[in-house]
Amino acid sequence: MSTKKTVKDYIRTIVDFPQEGILFRDVTTLFADARGFRMAIDQMLHPYAGQPIDKVVGLEARGFILGGAIAHQLSVGFVPVRKKGKLPGATIAQEYQLEYGDAVVEIHDDALAAGERVLLVDDLLATGGTAEAGIKLIERLGAEVVGCAFIIDLPDLGGRTRLEGLGMDVHCLCAFEGL
Amino acid sequence: MSTKKTVKDYIRTIVDFPQEGILFRDVTTLFADARGFRMAIDQMLHPYAGQPIDKVVGLEARGFILGGAIAHQLSVGFVPVRKKGKLPGATIAQEYQLEYGDAVVEIHDDALAAGERVLLVDDLLATGGTAEAGIKLIERLGAEVVGCAFIIDLPDLGGRTRLEGLGMDVHCLCAFEGL
Repeated sequence: MSTKKTVKDYIRTIVDFPQEGILFRDVTTLFADARGFRMAIDQMLHPYAGQPIDKVVGLEARGFILGGAIAHQLSVGFVPVRKKGKLPGATIAQEYQLEYGDAVVEIHDDALAAGERVLLVDDLLATGGTAEAGIKLIERLGAEVVGCAFIIDLPDLGGRTRLEGLGMDVHCLCAFEGL
Repeated sequence: MSTKKTVKDYIRTIVDFPQEGILFRDVTTLFADARGFRMAIDQMLHPYAGQPIDKVVGLEARGFILGGAIAHQLSVGFVPVRKKGKLPGATIAQEYQLEYGDAVVEIHDDALAAGERVLLVDDLLATGGTAEAGIKLIERLGAEVVGCAFIIDLPDLGGRTRLEGLGMDVHCLCAFEGL
């Protein structure tokens, strides 16, 4: 079994986190495993082999772990998209909707140059709300999103359809059905 | 100039963030630069070449960017130390003192095995309070801290002395004098 384990096999499901009724897909068991983490980073990059990429943007906080590794693998720079108030320099902000209320993410206003080709990464694609906000921030700086790469797709929440509707190339390593 | 830039040259200083009177050393300009980020990751690892390392532990949140890259470079697993309540599985917690009041960080209780050799990474060594809490969490799981690697040392805040007093190997790429 061990040599045949897929990325999905390393992901642990936690029941009732962060609240009752939620099956939380926990990638920390994937990240903690040498072979699992290596496979995940490599597989996230396979579709983009040979494509010019200038920067990797990661969404706070698990997207930082993936984004740091992917930027290093590509020998390009890494740019964080963070929750409001965390970035020290001048930023632009993007609001997006959560199940209850709104949230805001930010990017440094000088973090990307016009025309730069960006790979957006995060661990999980659910409704796609945070990813869409990240895409808008990248595009407002004049840069172009080459692709959006995730470990996990939750297809029942519609994130892939939403991002593809924006013309995005969406790449996920595995999917979990249901909520 | 450009080919002679050091890691320190890529770090931007933001005045009065997060509060008046603070000179915030902003590594996002380092991370966003392809050459700067590559140099930082490579230089953080130089002292540990040839040493067996089983896992990289990164401190939330900028330590995730570095830790992901370093774990990938070493082909080992990555383990996050997070603020209280963010990790979905069973955790152990460690309290530490901030300038005003206490804070708590956590690690999954199955994230490290006894005897594993761990490299701890973060962007900045100030008082060393968070790093010390991270070290305690690692050691409470029976693992061993091989080294603590940071981009920036603020020597006037005493973190290096504090961690070396615990018997740690401390590696910083550059220092900024003053607070």
